[in-house]
Amino acid sequence: MTLPQIFASRASRMTASEIRELLKLLDRPGLISFAGGIPDPALFPAQQFAAAFARGLAPDQQAQSLQYSVSEGYLPLREWIVGEMAKIGVPCSVDNILITSGSQQALDYLGKLFLSPGDTALVGWPTYLGALAAFNAYEPRYDQLSVTGNRTATSYATGAEAAGGQVKLAYLSADFANPTGETLDQQGRDALLDLAEELGCAVVEDAAYQSLRYDGEAVPPILATEIARKGSIEHCRTIFCGSFSKTLSPGLRLGWVVAAKPVISQLVLMKQAADLHTATLNQMAVHDVASRIFDSHVETLRGAYQHRRDVMLEALQIHMPESVTWTRPEGGMFIWLTLPAGINGAELLERSLDSVGVAFVPGVAFFADKSGGNTIRLSFSCSNEAQINQGIRLLGQVMRGA
Amino acid sequence: MTLPQIFASRASRMTASEIRELLKLLDRPGLISFAGGIPDPALFPAQQFAAAFARGLAPDQQAQSLQYSVSEGYLPLREWIVGEMAKIGVPCSVDNILITSGSQQALDYLGKLFLSPGDTALVGWPTYLGALAAFNAYEPRYDQLSVTGNRTATSYATGAEAAGGQVKLAYLSADFANPTGETLDQQGRDALLDLAEELGCAVVEDAAYQSLRYDGEAVPPILATEIARKGSIEHCRTIFCGSFSKTLSPGLRLGWVVAAKPVISQLVLMKQAADLHTATLNQMAVHDVASRIFDSHVETLRGAYQHRRDVMLEALQIHMPESVTWTRPEGGMFIWLTLPAGINGAELLERSLDSVGVAFVPGVAFFADKSGGNTIRLSFSCSNEAQINQGIRLLGQVMRGA
Repeated sequence: MTLPQIFASRASRMTASEIRELLKLLDRPGLISFAGGIPDPALFPAQQFAAAFARGLAPDQQAQSLQYSVSEGYLPLREWIVGEMAKIGVPCSVDNILITSGSQQALDYLGKLFLSPGDTALVGWPTYLGALAAFNAYEPRYDQLSVTGNRTATSYATGAEAAGGQVKLAYLSADFANPTGETLDQQGRDALLDLAEELGCAVVEDAAYQSLRYDGEAVPPILATEIARKGSIEHCRTIFCGSFSKTLSPGLRLGWVVAAKPVISQLVLMKQAADLHTATLNQMAVHDVASRIFDSHVETLRGAYQHRRDVMLEALQIHMPESVTWTRPEGGMFIWLTLPAGINGAELLERSLDSVGVAFVPGVAFFADKSGGNTIRLSFSCSNEAQINQGIRLLGQVMRGA
Repeated sequence: MTLPQIFASRASRMTASEIRELLKLLDRPGLISFAGGIPDPALFPAQQFAAAFARGLAPDQQAQSLQYSVSEGYLPLREWIVGEMAKIGVPCSVDNILITSGSQQALDYLGKLFLSPGDTALVGWPTYLGALAAFNAYEPRYDQLSVTGNRTATSYATGAEAAGGQVKLAYLSADFANPTGETLDQQGRDALLDLAEELGCAVVEDAAYQSLRYDGEAVPPILATEIARKGSIEHCRTIFCGSFSKTLSPGLRLGWVVAAKPVISQLVLMKQAADLHTATLNQMAVHDVASRIFDSHVETLRGAYQHRRDVMLEALQIHMPESVTWTRPEGGMFIWLTLPAGINGAELLERSLDSVGVAFVPGVAFFADKSGGNTIRLSFSCSNEAQINQGIRLLGQVMRGA
């Protein structure tokens, strides 16, 4: 037999990711890209990182920073995270925290921990494409976690019976979600926790964009809401996944998980078996930079991204055909457009790239059931005011078939 | 239901790792430790890394080094690896290479790619504990890959029928294996490839210690042997896992996989789903340091470790009871001791820690079938001449029951 013939079934379930193929387009000169959900590299705290890495490699640090370390993660970084979590209503200890190589790794481990083939995962229609990619390896069925956001009524179509498996987890990004930009209000978070209790499932709260709120009032994390109900994180079924990718640097691959100790214990064993630990020096450098400038740096990011969001919302108002609607996110990096039912986002992308050189992500990529053909995701994080105005104007032209 | 009740079955298969627990002992003051299989931090090329990280964070590099990057890995690093692989008889292209977060991650992904519950994995009795930990998550059965090393005859007890599953992979470290220190000779490598052809399985060649040869003649990698047979890596079933952990730094978590393109394509998709990519800056820094000093640095390491091996072998000759036998490795970090059948390595460790403060790893940890109770693993990598002489003398005392 050839090797491909003996790949485990989970291998054949993995198909080339749309986002990955799209990222390859971004090198085209002159392209205006609203595609990537990536931070603006001009805003990286690079000088601070240069100083932090130099300190981490000083003679008295190198025996630690270049050596193997514990799977749980660098203790001072976990202590810093304990302090940050307390500020958002999540009292916990370092034993409730695992450092991961980006929150993507947390999603992979949580899929591995909770999902067996045929189990059901509830996800938004649409949801973060990377969560589907991570969970797919464990061969779940998906069912729709239906949340209508931004302070309106909330409902859930669990349909677990339709999918047929036992519901093991509900995954969502509650703040400025990728791809819709929407935020789940407090009423929705309460309803979600009620649903999770009823189903006996875990809640995976992806907080990748949580720090990037530009206006409106902060809603406590789902985990904070559950702790308020139950008195201690040890009784909670919510698992909070944090990330430094949108605030400090994605390239250093640093995220964290906050959960009850039995969950963290299992994840630590998984991490030990899967890659031993996240790079020691990177953890030390991120701790160094975060403990010095995190709040002021996030303030700078908020100012820059808020302006770009405002510019894009205004440009959409001016240039979009009347038949197009979009979300008005209070933070994050994304605006989600719904086109008239007849227009296909993937076809629109092809036309847009060919005729005006504007890139975005067709919404269909974010639907586990491959619906949502008439939606697209725009990111405003990496474009300046002129690019946003010009790009949205050109996109309007393409939509009108000009 | 509580969360532990809904953990997937693979979670419950993970038990606290013996090595991890042992590493916690190493902080005890005054302890002489032959336990950890870790490089000597005094030999890290830390100054070179400090300069490389500074270059990677220079103003013209930071937009790349701190940003997301492709899952395959940093292209110049893959190009450098292509050159290194050519030197050891493995002609390949960058498309045959994936950068991983240490070779431990490669083992996890290969388990995920090849093993479904009930499949059989052939491993040495004993074998690298971390390989068992990585594969365990995918719930295989194990059967014995029996290799008698160091230029003696080689035989394999496949026993796949006894284990009952289809054999999907054979895993081994062919050079200075952890834990035995033994090397598989050319005849053995040929026999292993014949066996793999017969069984239709993959061969996972863990080359973590491959650069650290102190004497004797280098044997071409199993992958080189297979390429010589078949004319191209594209027809090979051997998958080579390399690591910078023993040569440059384990804390930076950098390894690589070399295999036929269909295997690499699947592993790239897995990596994208599991953690997107290995830290960009770390890949740039390792490429920087490796392309400047790899050969000369490895030469330095060889000199230092060879001396420690020689000291330990001589001390064993002097201080061990006649009933104890041990391997004479041509490289790596380990010597493997076989005690008289009556003596239990785990009990000996307890006595040794209590009475003389000398640590090592009981061999039972490295056996999938929990046999090997009368074996122990000694590492000479992190101890100086005086510590080795004193530690082995004390260990001899404990063995004699003094």
